[in-house]
Amino acid sequence: MASHKVTLLPSKTTTEAATGSLISEAILKAGLEISQPCGGQGRCGRCAVIAEGDGARRRSTIRLSPDDLKAGYALACQTVIEGDLVVTIPEQEQIVRRLVTDKTARVVETPFAYDPTTHQSVQVFQINLQPPSLQDNLDDQSRLEKSLADMGYTPLDIPLSALRQMGTALREAEWSPWVVLETQSPGTGPARLIDVSPDPVVPFGLALDIGTTTVTAFLVDLATGQVMNSAGEYNGQIARGEDVISRIIYASKNDGLADLGKMVRETIHTLLERLRKRTGISPEQIHKVTVAGNTTMIHLFLGLPPASIRLTPYIPTVNFPQTYLAEELHLGVHPQASVICLPGVASYVGADISAGVLASGLAAAEDLTLFIDVGTNGETVLGTRDWMVACACSAGPAFEGAGVVDGMRATIGAIEEVWIHSNSYEPTIRVIGDGPPRGLCGSGLISLLAEMFATGVVDRAGRVKLDLNTPRVRQGEHGPEYVVAWGDETETGRDVALTTVDVENLMRAKAAIYAGFSVLSTNVGVELADVKQVLIGGAFGKYINVENAIKIGLLPDLPWDRFQFLGNTSVLGSYMALLSREEHEQIRDIAKRMTYIELSADNTFFEAFTAALFLPHTEIDRFPSVVEVWEKNNQE
Amino acid sequence: MASHKVTLLPSKTTTEAATGSLISEAILKAGLEISQPCGGQGRCGRCAVIAEGDGARRRSTIRLSPDDLKAGYALACQTVIEGDLVVTIPEQEQIVRRLVTDKTARVVETPFAYDPTTHQSVQVFQINLQPPSLQDNLDDQSRLEKSLADMGYTPLDIPLSALRQMGTALREAEWSPWVVLETQSPGTGPARLIDVSPDPVVPFGLALDIGTTTVTAFLVDLATGQVMNSAGEYNGQIARGEDVISRIIYASKNDGLADLGKMVRETIHTLLERLRKRTGISPEQIHKVTVAGNTTMIHLFLGLPPASIRLTPYIPTVNFPQTYLAEELHLGVHPQASVICLPGVASYVGADISAGVLASGLAAAEDLTLFIDVGTNGETVLGTRDWMVACACSAGPAFEGAGVVDGMRATIGAIEEVWIHSNSYEPTIRVIGDGPPRGLCGSGLISLLAEMFATGVVDRAGRVKLDLNTPRVRQGEHGPEYVVAWGDETETGRDVALTTVDVENLMRAKAAIYAGFSVLSTNVGVELADVKQVLIGGAFGKYINVENAIKIGLLPDLPWDRFQFLGNTSVLGSYMALLSREEHEQIRDIAKRMTYIELSADNTFFEAFTAALFLPHTEIDRFPSVVEVWEKNNQE
Repeated sequence: MASHKVTLLPSKTTTEAATGSLISEAILKAGLEISQPCGGQGRCGRCAVIAEGDGARRRSTIRLSPDDLKAGYALACQTVIEGDLVVTIPEQEQIVRRLVTDKTARVVETPFAYDPTTHQSVQVFQINLQPPSLQDNLDDQSRLEKSLADMGYTPLDIPLSALRQMGTALREAEWSPWVVLETQSPGTGPARLIDVSPDPVVPFGLALDIGTTTVTAFLVDLATGQVMNSAGEYNGQIARGEDVISRIIYASKNDGLADLGKMVRETIHTLLERLRKRTGISPEQIHKVTVAGNTTMIHLFLGLPPASIRLTPYIPTVNFPQTYLAEELHLGVHPQASVICLPGVASYVGADISAGVLASGLAAAEDLTLFIDVGTNGETVLGTRDWMVACACSAGPAFEGAGVVDGMRATIGAIEEVWIHSNSYEPTIRVIGDGPPRGLCGSGLISLLAEMFATGVVDRAGRVKLDLNTPRVRQGEHGPEYVVAWGDETETGRDVALTTVDVENLMRAKAAIYAGFSVLSTNVGVELADVKQVLIGGAFGKYINVENAIKIGLLPDLPWDRFQFLGNTSVLGSYMALLSREEHEQIRDIAKRMTYIELSADNTFFEAFTAALFLPHTEIDRFPSVVEVWEKNNQE
Repeated sequence: MASHKVTLLPSKTTTEAATGSLISEAILKAGLEISQPCGGQGRCGRCAVIAEGDGARRRSTIRLSPDDLKAGYALACQTVIEGDLVVTIPEQEQIVRRLVTDKTARVVETPFAYDPTTHQSVQVFQINLQPPSLQDNLDDQSRLEKSLADMGYTPLDIPLSALRQMGTALREAEWSPWVVLETQSPGTGPARLIDVSPDPVVPFGLALDIGTTTVTAFLVDLATGQVMNSAGEYNGQIARGEDVISRIIYASKNDGLADLGKMVRETIHTLLERLRKRTGISPEQIHKVTVAGNTTMIHLFLGLPPASIRLTPYIPTVNFPQTYLAEELHLGVHPQASVICLPGVASYVGADISAGVLASGLAAAEDLTLFIDVGTNGETVLGTRDWMVACACSAGPAFEGAGVVDGMRATIGAIEEVWIHSNSYEPTIRVIGDGPPRGLCGSGLISLLAEMFATGVVDRAGRVKLDLNTPRVRQGEHGPEYVVAWGDETETGRDVALTTVDVENLMRAKAAIYAGFSVLSTNVGVELADVKQVLIGGAFGKYINVENAIKIGLLPDLPWDRFQFLGNTSVLGSYMALLSREEHEQIRDIAKRMTYIELSADNTFFEAFTAALFLPHTEIDRFPSVVEVWEKNNQE
């Protein structure tokens, strides 16, 4: 097969590509990054590159304008190489790695009075063995087993890798080794050998939350229960698709599953290295790992094909994974460390939600409580300590900046809050990093839409009104739009605007979330107004303005003091399970008890969704506080 | 560091070697074989090569004669490369691969009435699962667990690799998969998932005996219990040392442990491929493996450092290994197949003896029974079904042809039986393969020594008498000797002889074995004369002539009908454990019940050994049948 030279700019990297291969493949082969949020489906247009030379055959140009094509643009995932090429990867498409959650190590309180001897499954102690002799020639393993059985730990499961080190370690320790065990109950019962060491061992643990977007890690001293340090990083899988569906599609191609597994491991290893630099604690000192994450993330982490998650009836391979060893998962901590993937409820209500329900306190709540993880899947749980119903409402990634022309993630240059003057319609904006804006992140979109609605820039159906006396509203390339930043103020030189199409996408997202908890409340026969607390999880949830979110009908119209923004409840639940067998058991219990309602099988969902496709809602009396403000504004 | 060109003849292979590296390393690096029976210690002289050029610095020449040195000989393991070299590897040192045990597939009877449903731990059956739906969205793992729990198999241990295939297999099977389980008791209790398959599964098993010299494999149909085929092959580790001590030394060098592990796996894979060709059954169809072997072989197979086996107080890492998965051991059968290494008693009484004690019938014997594995370690067990004592008497490899000038293994060209004319002292010989002789194998040595003793060529102290009227006795290069084949009859052109030094080595070996069971009988207060049956195991044991063995005092002087030669009892025990949980448990019970007597800690052993250093023994009245013949001969 013929081979062609592909030169990649601006890095000036060259690579060889076979006839028929894709530009995206050539870029990855050269070790460079290309964003493919839709998973290489040609749907999102994010992988647009400039391809010069005759060797580019564009299979699909659906996301490119005639002007784009004239300028040489091509979708990397849809363009076949048939000759030598020079490809320019536009800078704005390269992934900016900056995390708001990783500015400094956060102080995390130990969530309960931690007693390592009763709560912790990892037990460390020194034992004194009788040295062997010609008269007492018991083998090493039996000698150790006997001593631990005398202490109550029997039977003892010994992984091969632990056995391989045993003889040397016992002799270096002069028969008084330190022993690290994974135990099942305090001070007795079956146990697994994690390590035998001649040197004193201080056990550490790692609590992980593998988010679709961000991976968060807490490094924990298992002797004290304290979080030594925490770190967060974009999930490296983002380069292969921004949402779970794109990743599932990617996972089913060739080596996609292995590739995604490698990427998330690399992200975790990056975090481990950062934690090592900050604390001096090496990954080999980590003897236990707990993992929260949505069902797809857990499947990819475990190397399980996720295809069935996406196909009706949406069945995952596993909701309650067994415990595996770090070495089996090629995770660079202590090889015999337990890796405990927390349990999920269903394909779209995963371990992140089980963990979040524990960490948020819903599982212990006496009063009616609503827990929402605002994000792509919009997982929602309604209940008390006695009962819980859950659903996922496929909100889509609009609040994460996808599906919106000028949407972006919450990184430098993102507009995170907007205020519109109700007479002049002139906006005031706050930008992450305080530099020139590049686009709008989730909280910025909610804020902007709320302001546009409050000031009458859009009507209740979400249509931008073109008859206002301001150049900010106009008929743009994509239809009616409101310009929130002129090109001369922005980083890119292009106007940043919100179009009617964007608003429709945002409204579909918020309607899905609202319909989700509406259906839950209808199903169990309670009124939303009776909800005594609304607990909002997810890193994104921390930055939402309640007033704005109610204004657009994303959150129910309840007194503001009933809302709590808890941040990443998934990693907190993972941390609790890391500390304590009982908390881990609690999460298992929560996952078992939660009743999952599959919205696609519930015929009231579509009705509720359609009713919510208005600002704030078709049934306006559900939002008395909004009516008040809106009527006041429109009277002026 | 400077690099030199090393040309290897007769293969004309060239390789680069750094200054200071050994010729043996260069040979191995070039992918060629070099025999190092002593493990590269410079003790055995078997790695002698001809080194031409100035670049060879001989560190030790202890095994080379002045004539050898003149001819350019060097010990490959003791010669440092300091310049370009031409190295000739003599043909007689290359390992001849021919196995008497692998001529044809032997017919092995199933040793008991086999019922797979009650005896076999591997259970295979088809189950019918309810397909999932939107109303019944249980995950795949829970659906399978629930169905198997309903049948009594719970909890279910699911290896990661089995989980990774589960989703696809269940769907391809349209929810009626074949399930393969490793179970702990018939029809109920905890189980481990080996496989979920859309296609019908017939389970197969592999019973292995990993001998220091030979690896033997039985391929078994677990549905019927029948041996489909068997195969044997030299253990590939032989190239790194002929006895366990040499291999332990080699294992402690650099990558020695990994290298030996790889070699024995390659041998097993060779056998699997041969079995596949003969039966059409692929290694992936093997769902269970049992392994017998001495303690060092089991350690090397499991990748455990064996160093402590060789150092007082001779403690192995493990006598009772837990069950591991084939994939953990990189064994090319079904990845989730159980690999069950049978239990041993001590460093020098291993799983081969526990298995042999079961297969030989000693463990069920009502009468006093002696079980001997005649070989390097001379493991001996004395007892009945009620009690057993065991020892290993370090006979050394003399009976395997090492430590004897013209000794060799039982391959083509080995003299296996000798008869000496009592007047002319002229010998008649039988040679394996019926060609010209090259040396003497174990049975040939026993036969020759017995004949030399019977005809008065040696006296009772083992000294060759030079005053006989025959050119066959002479003062040779190594002292007094008897020439069993003249150079013009042999393959090498050199005389084949047995020297007084050789005889001393053989006498030490037979004395050690005799002293071993003497000490056992003294320890438990029984007379050797009361032994009702002598069971002789080991492939070598099959070829011993009882009369000759008694004549030299290797075996006790009992009526010949009390002796049974059972062949490889180790692989038979492995086969029995493969078939049945109860037989496996029996072997565990045997290993636990056997009382090990460490001869180096027993002060009667040295006395018994010294007393046995005569032909047939210092206390001649222990051998009445020999006295009779000997006195008759000497009267003539």
